[in-house]
Amino acid sequence: MKPSIPKGTRDFSPTEVANRTYIMNAIKASFETFGFQPIETPSFENSETLMGKYGEEGDRLIFKILNSGDYLAKADEKLLSEKDSLKVTSQISEKALRYDLTVPFARYVVQHQNEITFPFKRYQVQPVWRADRPQKGRFREFFQCDADVVGSTSLWQEVEFIQLYDTVFTKLGLHKTTIKINNRKILSGIAEVIGAQDKLIDFTVALDKLDKIGKDGVVKEMLSKGITEEAIEKVQPLFNFTGSNLDKLASLEGMLQTSEEGKNGVEELRFVINAVDSLGLTSANLEVDVTLARGLNYYTGAIFEVSAPKGVNMGSIGGGGRYDDLTGIFGLNDVSGVGISFGLDRIYLVLEELGLFKAVDNPKPKVIFLNFDASTDLFKMKALKALRENNIKSEFYPDLGESNKQQKRQWKYVTSREIEFVVSSLENDVFTLKNMISGDQIECSLSELVNKLN
Amino acid sequence: MKPSIPKGTRDFSPTEVANRTYIMNAIKASFETFGFQPIETPSFENSETLMGKYGEEGDRLIFKILNSGDYLAKADEKLLSEKDSLKVTSQISEKALRYDLTVPFARYVVQHQNEITFPFKRYQVQPVWRADRPQKGRFREFFQCDADVVGSTSLWQEVEFIQLYDTVFTKLGLHKTTIKINNRKILSGIAEVIGAQDKLIDFTVALDKLDKIGKDGVVKEMLSKGITEEAIEKVQPLFNFTGSNLDKLASLEGMLQTSEEGKNGVEELRFVINAVDSLGLTSANLEVDVTLARGLNYYTGAIFEVSAPKGVNMGSIGGGGRYDDLTGIFGLNDVSGVGISFGLDRIYLVLEELGLFKAVDNPKPKVIFLNFDASTDLFKMKALKALRENNIKSEFYPDLGESNKQQKRQWKYVTSREIEFVVSSLENDVFTLKNMISGDQIECSLSELVNKLN
Repeated sequence: MKPSIPKGTRDFSPTEVANRTYIMNAIKASFETFGFQPIETPSFENSETLMGKYGEEGDRLIFKILNSGDYLAKADEKLLSEKDSLKVTSQISEKALRYDLTVPFARYVVQHQNEITFPFKRYQVQPVWRADRPQKGRFREFFQCDADVVGSTSLWQEVEFIQLYDTVFTKLGLHKTTIKINNRKILSGIAEVIGAQDKLIDFTVALDKLDKIGKDGVVKEMLSKGITEEAIEKVQPLFNFTGSNLDKLASLEGMLQTSEEGKNGVEELRFVINAVDSLGLTSANLEVDVTLARGLNYYTGAIFEVSAPKGVNMGSIGGGGRYDDLTGIFGLNDVSGVGISFGLDRIYLVLEELGLFKAVDNPKPKVIFLNFDASTDLFKMKALKALRENNIKSEFYPDLGESNKQQKRQWKYVTSREIEFVVSSLENDVFTLKNMISGDQIECSLSELVNKLN
Repeated sequence: MKPSIPKGTRDFSPTEVANRTYIMNAIKASFETFGFQPIETPSFENSETLMGKYGEEGDRLIFKILNSGDYLAKADEKLLSEKDSLKVTSQISEKALRYDLTVPFARYVVQHQNEITFPFKRYQVQPVWRADRPQKGRFREFFQCDADVVGSTSLWQEVEFIQLYDTVFTKLGLHKTTIKINNRKILSGIAEVIGAQDKLIDFTVALDKLDKIGKDGVVKEMLSKGITEEAIEKVQPLFNFTGSNLDKLASLEGMLQTSEEGKNGVEELRFVINAVDSLGLTSANLEVDVTLARGLNYYTGAIFEVSAPKGVNMGSIGGGGRYDDLTGIFGLNDVSGVGISFGLDRIYLVLEELGLFKAVDNPKPKVIFLNFDASTDLFKMKALKALRENNIKSEFYPDLGESNKQQKRQWKYVTSREIEFVVSSLENDVFTLKNMISGDQIECSLSELVNKLN
């Protein structure tokens, strides 16, 4: 009979909220340092805004909200009797919970285009909801932290986003992340070379296994997927894809000689990598990875994905890329966008695993006034008021402890909440202040108390 | 064809987010100063957690989430063919959006009772959703900011909550709010005196009109509602309910002589008022108001409601009270709770009307590097990196401005975003920095630039 919460959702305890706030504040502060401005959009959108934007699978995973009132009145009787769930949905539900922050952002840009000065650099930190099967690091309600620029095609944006990842992860103490970068145009070039766009995913999936199954295994898998020996021959350089990022680009350039688009992709990547090399990264590594095929139907230029440091078993903790026509779905064409996302919940799990929350300030009071003598209550409340006016987190144990047992309960409360300072008694304006860590106890006046705790 | 958002929801622009964050941070900081700790609960709960907790009207206003997949499969065919929306709901929907923060908090306390040290002082700042008819200050998605204590019956909590209201509104510059206070037990006493619990709402509604329609009007309305002349005679003091709060209590005490519960209510109020008088309030007024019947079936002791300063036309901007058995609905009995709520969206409207957002720091960059000469890009990016390492909000106009028109667009961007400092050119490591407010322009080195902007 104990109450519970829906599968894939979570309650957050005070410590967890403090840790999450710590991560979010680091991300938000960096976003603002880089010139991004916050916006927020509603938790639910009109269904037509979201449906059809994430593919068939996405449509299925969007949480739909039932219309209010007598929602069945307008539903088609035949469809109801046939129990045609799919078709009935649009008749009984007009709203749906946000599935990501990108589509609502595109909707926002189009809706508010006359109020916005472009290029528009916005950030957004809000929850999204997906009816996905929950697993480690995957929840049905989770926060996304996105920064995007729309209205500029400059590759300096790509450079800045890589610096932004580096800045945030450095600030969080999460060193040695790997920022993987690819370019959609390079993938298109590879597709041209292997002679089939529709084999591209099979190709990258197979290639991604090179470390595990070796060249022979990869070639075998490619052949089984219908990629010809001749095509595989042409992409030989990918089987020995080592050296620096610039080495890799040189190798790609040779391989993609016959593809204009492929060569463009290499040029774009080279610009970004040269710039990042010149500017330097503090704690992250940048790595060209041609198997990166994230959001293949979505991105048109750069593709990013961030991996946690080696040894931490977690999917990507961030990702993004450039999309040349983000707002086209809502009727505003030719607005290029590029952006990245931080996966708050996964970053949380990584920081936890690596013990990186030590510095987080817990939202607990610094001092508590115990309550053993009702006659001094008012004096204590006055002292408390003075402390709080000095922004010292403080509280008063509310219930009078007369018996030994009741007084013990108050001390137990202090220990369990790990409160550092305790005022245990007050006589003639003299407070007895105990430091619970050192065990030291002093007697002091109110002004000394404020100074001591400030 | 322009995209839109659902009725009663809002997009928030960067300025609005900054203003909202300012209010939320003031509230959260005060909550923590008073010893409260943050928790968060999921946006949606199992339907059985919420349904039946807010009365029939509340049930109707709760947003329900459609089950995923083939949700009609399990629905009763007869009910579907009868289009019985009410009964079908529970067969096709198992989750619902949070309607307030109090019921999820009660659920949290019961579910996590073994991890919690009581008294538990928690705060929670999260959105809630209601399918209400939108109007000024009433939205379908809005934020609540709640602080509650469970597990203590001490009246010092009531005193602290009044101080907390005063602290937050003072911090926001919102002076002369009125914190109205009543006690459920006084209302019960009045019901005893007028001889009918079921007439209590009619009684308080009529009495509330005293200022507007005068004593004769109020008596007439009470008689029309079936309250007897004899009963009205017994509550004469309420028709001349003036003087200090203590005067009012004396008058109530005389009137409620025959009601034990009523006299208890007066005693409780007297304790709270005496304490608040001794401690003092900075900017708010405390006012006993026996017409305050907020959450009548819910609260068992103190009842609070906060009005905006006179002259601002807005419903209550906060409210709360004591409920003796909050967690009983989930099977944990005898846990007394008391709490207050801040209505973020209404407070926003009041601050806006009174021009109290002037101090809010807009999340715009402090300095921008214009882009008129691609050959200096890398130097500018290096300077930008140095500024950002010093936490100076800064950006680089991404697209090269070669033509006059393109360069004008960059200056227009600066003006429209109200950016204070502009680096317009860079030659031989010398930056030209312009203050857009004073018009002053200087030439400086990188280290001078960092110092100047820091």
